[in-house]
Amino acid sequence: MLEYTAPVHDMRFVINELIGLSSVRELNGFNEVSEDLVNAVLEEASKLATEVLAPLNRSGDIEGCRQDGDAVFTPKGWRAAYEAFCEGGWNGLDMDPRYGGQGLPKVIATAVSEMWDAANLSFSLCPLLTAGAIEAIERHGSPEMRRNYLKKMVSGVWSGTMNLTEPQAGSDLGAVRTAAVPEGDHYRITGQKIFITYGEHDLTSNIIHLVLARIQGAPSGTRGISLFVVPKILVNEDGTLGERNDVRCVSIEHKLGIHGSPTAVLSYGDEDGAIGYLVGEENRGLAHMFTMMNRARHAVGREGIALADGSYQQALKYARDRVQGRAAGATAPSPLIDHPDVKRMLMTMKSQIEAMRALACACAVEYDVAARHADAEKRAQAQRRGDFLTPIVKGWCSETGQELTSLGIQIHGGMGYVEETGAAQYLRDVRITTIYEGTTGIQAGDLVGRKTLRDGGASARELIADMRRTVGDMSDCGGPVVTIRKKLAEGISALEEVVEWLIAEGGGDPQLPGAVAASYLRLCGVVCGGWMMARAAHICDEQPTKDGADAPFYSSKLASASFYAAQIMPTAAALASTIIEGSHAITQLDEKAF
Amino acid sequence: MLEYTAPVHDMRFVINELIGLSSVRELNGFNEVSEDLVNAVLEEASKLATEVLAPLNRSGDIEGCRQDGDAVFTPKGWRAAYEAFCEGGWNGLDMDPRYGGQGLPKVIATAVSEMWDAANLSFSLCPLLTAGAIEAIERHGSPEMRRNYLKKMVSGVWSGTMNLTEPQAGSDLGAVRTAAVPEGDHYRITGQKIFITYGEHDLTSNIIHLVLARIQGAPSGTRGISLFVVPKILVNEDGTLGERNDVRCVSIEHKLGIHGSPTAVLSYGDEDGAIGYLVGEENRGLAHMFTMMNRARHAVGREGIALADGSYQQALKYARDRVQGRAAGATAPSPLIDHPDVKRMLMTMKSQIEAMRALACACAVEYDVAARHADAEKRAQAQRRGDFLTPIVKGWCSETGQELTSLGIQIHGGMGYVEETGAAQYLRDVRITTIYEGTTGIQAGDLVGRKTLRDGGASARELIADMRRTVGDMSDCGGPVVTIRKKLAEGISALEEVVEWLIAEGGGDPQLPGAVAASYLRLCGVVCGGWMMARAAHICDEQPTKDGADAPFYSSKLASASFYAAQIMPTAAALASTIIEGSHAITQLDEKAF
Repeated sequence: MLEYTAPVHDMRFVINELIGLSSVRELNGFNEVSEDLVNAVLEEASKLATEVLAPLNRSGDIEGCRQDGDAVFTPKGWRAAYEAFCEGGWNGLDMDPRYGGQGLPKVIATAVSEMWDAANLSFSLCPLLTAGAIEAIERHGSPEMRRNYLKKMVSGVWSGTMNLTEPQAGSDLGAVRTAAVPEGDHYRITGQKIFITYGEHDLTSNIIHLVLARIQGAPSGTRGISLFVVPKILVNEDGTLGERNDVRCVSIEHKLGIHGSPTAVLSYGDEDGAIGYLVGEENRGLAHMFTMMNRARHAVGREGIALADGSYQQALKYARDRVQGRAAGATAPSPLIDHPDVKRMLMTMKSQIEAMRALACACAVEYDVAARHADAEKRAQAQRRGDFLTPIVKGWCSETGQELTSLGIQIHGGMGYVEETGAAQYLRDVRITTIYEGTTGIQAGDLVGRKTLRDGGASARELIADMRRTVGDMSDCGGPVVTIRKKLAEGISALEEVVEWLIAEGGGDPQLPGAVAASYLRLCGVVCGGWMMARAAHICDEQPTKDGADAPFYSSKLASASFYAAQIMPTAAALASTIIEGSHAITQLDEKAF
Repeated sequence: MLEYTAPVHDMRFVINELIGLSSVRELNGFNEVSEDLVNAVLEEASKLATEVLAPLNRSGDIEGCRQDGDAVFTPKGWRAAYEAFCEGGWNGLDMDPRYGGQGLPKVIATAVSEMWDAANLSFSLCPLLTAGAIEAIERHGSPEMRRNYLKKMVSGVWSGTMNLTEPQAGSDLGAVRTAAVPEGDHYRITGQKIFITYGEHDLTSNIIHLVLARIQGAPSGTRGISLFVVPKILVNEDGTLGERNDVRCVSIEHKLGIHGSPTAVLSYGDEDGAIGYLVGEENRGLAHMFTMMNRARHAVGREGIALADGSYQQALKYARDRVQGRAAGATAPSPLIDHPDVKRMLMTMKSQIEAMRALACACAVEYDVAARHADAEKRAQAQRRGDFLTPIVKGWCSETGQELTSLGIQIHGGMGYVEETGAAQYLRDVRITTIYEGTTGIQAGDLVGRKTLRDGGASARELIADMRRTVGDMSDCGGPVVTIRKKLAEGISALEEVVEWLIAEGGGDPQLPGAVAASYLRLCGVVCGGWMMARAAHICDEQPTKDGADAPFYSSKLASASFYAAQIMPTAAALASTIIEGSHAITQLDEKAF
């Protein structure tokens, strides 16, 4: 059985020290959030992740989901685990107390959810999708909808789904064809939706589908799409369950990974049309959906971090236990971890996991501040920063997750290729994260277009200025932090050069933004991650005494930050070169060249 | 069903133009090798790959192998395909005509085998392992052994295996425990071997196992290991099959990929001890094994190229067919390939596949020259170059294969994650290539230690000088080749700086070579690949007329080379920085930091 230990110490460090709890506590409604509370929540979550969810990860992968008629059954143990999860109140951790949520900050929920993802991604997708549906109803639903659905969904008695994709409409949601015909206070929905995570399952008594569809006569393209609530089982006025709605699971996908998570093809309206209720305004469905996009995309980035960490923990254990060959200078057989190249692989994992975790938490704090700060100016600033960081967290963390889980296999050698070891599952599971909730290409296009060019580089320059402030703050540091600071400064310069070049050139060739987008996203990720690690190193370096109980943690963090600066940050200059000097090789590329 | 079209045109270009057939034809025994012959062989092989092997790739993956008692059955269709393969004479393509081989150069076999790997890696592993066993017997076996086994193995009537790994002895073969006790003219072998590719199967009437074992009383470690032939069924003096030997398949592995290829755990000597015959000298088993290592490692690098190309072909087809969104400036929905980021991904695949293919073929020519040139000096020079390039081909091509097959999935979006599409199989299958026949860490250690430091950098400098000669030859080029030349020169400088630094520093800290090895290997790969692409671009640029039938090919090659220079080569400088400025972050890394 795979073991998973939640990285509670690092999470505490990121929340309490790196970000600083004071910036959270000053927010409306969070005044009671103390370090003790943070620590207690992390410890409790850690137990559930380790004791309940992680033991089902491998068995769920092997067993997978099973369809019988239009019913779908999750793997053995899933139902009991879901019950324990909901009983602990975890389903509504960062949700509104009015609907039964715990009302905790998103930054804490980010750390906690990383534990669920790492312990068992297939399982954690159910609450993740429910959270998305809750947010849609909470923000855009009618008071009646909120009353009818939210308490049941926040408690986890019902789950939720997001129905976007259709066979002909993947990344291009403007091509959605599912039809909605008005009928009294509701609509009749007909059409087929694919890739619906937890679209059908046996964990809850009802499933609340959020569905993108086109109202009869609506404009074509993205401006004619509306958002609907379509419950699997209709809900009576008194909140009890009524008749079965006209939506069925046609099939579930046979996927590379996340086998424990059912991915459904749903057919709406095979009989009279499924009854659906309009959420928000007609034809504003995509806009309503996009208001939840940050949360969902941020969550998927976090999944990349989580699986990389699960993979790292397993590889580290193997590297410590497995004796093979003699490391340079050793007089007896050595554990793998003594071999420098294995050390390199492990630290490539650890340092980037820590950088990504810090960035994901820093981004979550921006969401908290944007939602709750007393000062409107601060809220707007945080919204800008959160909007800018979201595609980076999603794209960079999921892409890096691919590389790191592959290293996790590599460290195991031949054993990594044997499924029983469990190392390969992390790679198979993480492979979806660069695809769903918008591919890396979509994230990169968002970052370069809507987030950088549209405001003339203002958000990007604001971020760069903050980074430079860190470099300034570090000017009195000594030891290894000198190099960390130098490499951060080099990374920032590469990023700045690219941003200024983009602003100058991006309005010209219409091919240009898309051609450089992926490299730009990665560049932003590498530099932002280095910024987080440099700030962490600065904190560790400033510890008045380094021989307390936390001393090993601080010194380990310094080692990660040094490694990141030396081994990861140099990529920034190469990326800048591929963008500034190399974009022509893409923009001038004729389709005939393939 | 997945389609695979062998890249015959590019292979012809590499062999006939880039390498130049004259350098092959001047070799002993190859005087009859003409362009027509090359083209005919490639065309014939292409048919078998496309019509016979490729159609079984997906079905073999789904069905996998089945064990029943100590028998193992390959997937449906495997036996007929193997028969067709052997009947065509493909099993002995580059083998000695004295044993029934076709006697063709290794460079042609490299291209042909790439087709087998791309069409169906699980299938092609059987002839690959047989080839390794043949080479061992041919080089080190007794005349009797050669007489008894080689014709049957070259024709494919019998197959061969390589038995190295044991549970406690993976990369560290010095830890082998399988025992050999002398008994008359043979030995009795007892022990367990794991990860034996095609260790048991139903394709041939006998299986000739090559087994590393330790003769009773031999020294411990690598100097006490001997190599044995252990046939599954004993061979009578007259060459007919005799009694079943005491070797059994205990189980087959459940792996991430190559499901159609049985990976066996073999138990030797459960009863009286398996009868084995010493190959070559006592205690020289590892040395004998290493003489075949170049071939095997080169072959695994080629697998990385092949699967990347299979993945590319599928992704290209999907990108052309699938309409999604509108590319910048388009007035109607666009195929994926019109989106610049998709173009970038496709060309990231194509340009590196072409660079890797050229390098693998260039390396194979060195083997041919080393074996057959009339001039001893030329033979020695080619041996040095081949020895230097082998770990690069193995390590760089297999690692790049991971990245490219992952891009192949990415281009498919959500469909790539669904197994039915077939894109994921390439990633699952290729994942073994950075592990077997020596992990990337082992290759990198070999490259930095035995191939670079041991001769004081002589081989590396010789290679760099050849590359600089290309830069010099290109000085009169115009157009896009100017940039290609400039980027090649930058890459060479980065490599040269690292080589000189390694020679100066490598003898100091014993941790250093291992710490920088992986980055050094990748650096060598990136620069060597760029060298190949630059030479290709130079040839295309020099075409007297560019409007012949080959004009589209030449212009497509120029596009690949431009892309490589602009988008791939800049990594070289970053790698040099991680090595020269960044090695301390690994060498000074304390195990407590994890």
